[in-house]
Amino acid sequence: MELFSSLTPVFIAIICVLIGIILKSNRKNSKKGKRETKNKSESRPWVDDDLRDSTDLHVEEEDADGDWQGLDENIAHVSFSAEHYSEGEMIKRSKEFYELLSKRRSVRFISDEPVPREVINNVIKAAGTSPSGAHTEPWTFVVVQDPEVKQRIREIIEEEEEINYKKRMGDRWVNDLKRLRYLDYSSYLILILKQVYGMLPNGQRRTPLLNEIMLLPVVILFANVGLVTVTSTPLNCGPRLRVLLQRPKNEKLLLLLPVGYPSKDATVPDLTRKPLDDIMVVM
Amino acid sequence: MELFSSLTPVFIAIICVLIGIILKSNRKNSKKGKRETKNKSESRPWVDDDLRDSTDLHVEEEDADGDWQGLDENIAHVSFSAEHYSEGEMIKRSKEFYELLSKRRSVRFISDEPVPREVINNVIKAAGTSPSGAHTEPWTFVVVQDPEVKQRIREIIEEEEEINYKKRMGDRWVNDLKRLRYLDYSSYLILILKQVYGMLPNGQRRTPLLNEIMLLPVVILFANVGLVTVTSTPLNCGPRLRVLLQRPKNEKLLLLLPVGYPSKDATVPDLTRKPLDDIMVVM
Repeated sequence: MELFSSLTPVFIAIICVLIGIILKSNRKNSKKGKRETKNKSESRPWVDDDLRDSTDLHVEEEDADGDWQGLDENIAHVSFSAEHYSEGEMIKRSKEFYELLSKRRSVRFISDEPVPREVINNVIKAAGTSPSGAHTEPWTFVVVQDPEVKQRIREIIEEEEEINYKKRMGDRWVNDLKRLRYLDYSSYLILILKQVYGMLPNGQRRTPLLNEIMLLPVVILFANVGLVTVTSTPLNCGPRLRVLLQRPKNEKLLLLLPVGYPSKDATVPDLTRKPLDDIMVVM
Repeated sequence: MELFSSLTPVFIAIICVLIGIILKSNRKNSKKGKRETKNKSESRPWVDDDLRDSTDLHVEEEDADGDWQGLDENIAHVSFSAEHYSEGEMIKRSKEFYELLSKRRSVRFISDEPVPREVINNVIKAAGTSPSGAHTEPWTFVVVQDPEVKQRIREIIEEEEEINYKKRMGDRWVNDLKRLRYLDYSSYLILILKQVYGMLPNGQRRTPLLNEIMLLPVVILFANVGLVTVTSTPLNCGPRLRVLLQRPKNEKLLLLLPVGYPSKDATVPDLTRKPLDDIMVVM
């Protein structure tokens, strides 16, 4: 008992220390807690976790995209009218457009036959009419015609693909990479970058405003003039390509499209598309 | 001293309890730590953290989208050719397409004048020609014409918007929500859903294969027939709308588009688009 009682001050000291530690760790947790509840408050109780994907991950972006709230209230409005086609004409035009698009395929056999620059310009002007949250138009199209830059782009992609493939499927990458040569041959490489965040005059970042799904895909525009391409989002290459193309830090690669006329020996996988009934539900 | 020593067992008990608490909280933190490092390992050393957005977040999806690796090696190939237009014709077609799209605007003033179903069908067939990783075509288009379903959709969005707005901008939501009435009036509401993951015959999940940017936006297709729409991604409404539309758990709402003829009194914000030089870089 004597021993114990002599140790008493030590016990008390230990208690104080332990309490201190606990208080500290609690403060940490409560900070974390705040952050978590902040995130939670964005998602709703009934949100179905199976469905949480990118669309949930950049809520700010979606939010800004909600066209009904993005724009400055004070901006003047002008009257709008569109061509009012007859029913027959509407059906004809929609059918012809479907037929044009139904012939479009992703083609990797692209010739180096030069394509008039004016066509590329018109295609990019057309892509630039895409809707964007609060009309921020946060996109950049890089058109690469310099053979050395094309080759460097292909090399960067091959290096990254090699790493990805080795991680995932061993030797197979060697065969697959042979297919990347078409990047050099293509008349143009077009890289679409998104401004991930804008800059306010005061230098502060502004939330990103582009919902990628809104960017009009140039594939239609090329199909319309008899050019072919294949959309690709090279895995992990974005930042290196951004540096190669001397684009600012706030721009991120969305898509890489080699563009040109199909080569004489072009082939595509023999695929059919789902019938309308498999993709459309009417209520 | 006597008092203290008699209290000694109490002190010891307290110490044990406190130690217990500390150990517990430490275990929590170390779990958190593991999760964090796991996420880190997915990013590449040189990846530029400013640029980590959705495109990085679903690497699997991008990866599968790389058209050059998605498809079954054994599928037969067929030869492909496209219309080879003269330069003049290409320039003309690309210019006309640009002019068509440059007239397209996001319009919220939509009349309830009925639109022929065949036009909607053709538009959705056209959208269904979008490229998708490994040709999975993981999309569903829900066409809503039932006025009660339209109204219910508007109510769900208003409920969610009210919550979002109150969180962010106080009373302003009231004014903004008035604008949502057009959802009821529109001839059709079209909801585009993405199959977030597929199901293998053995019931296992398959990685999602759609890169959203590849989905051909129906806005062009409607513009082509003189119809108007406004793309929106209602914040947090996805799961409730999915349930309302009786869609399976693996489908996620990407876009909601009210569609119809512009109403007589339609107006749009008086905006101009960036000139080509602001969005295009040539190397």
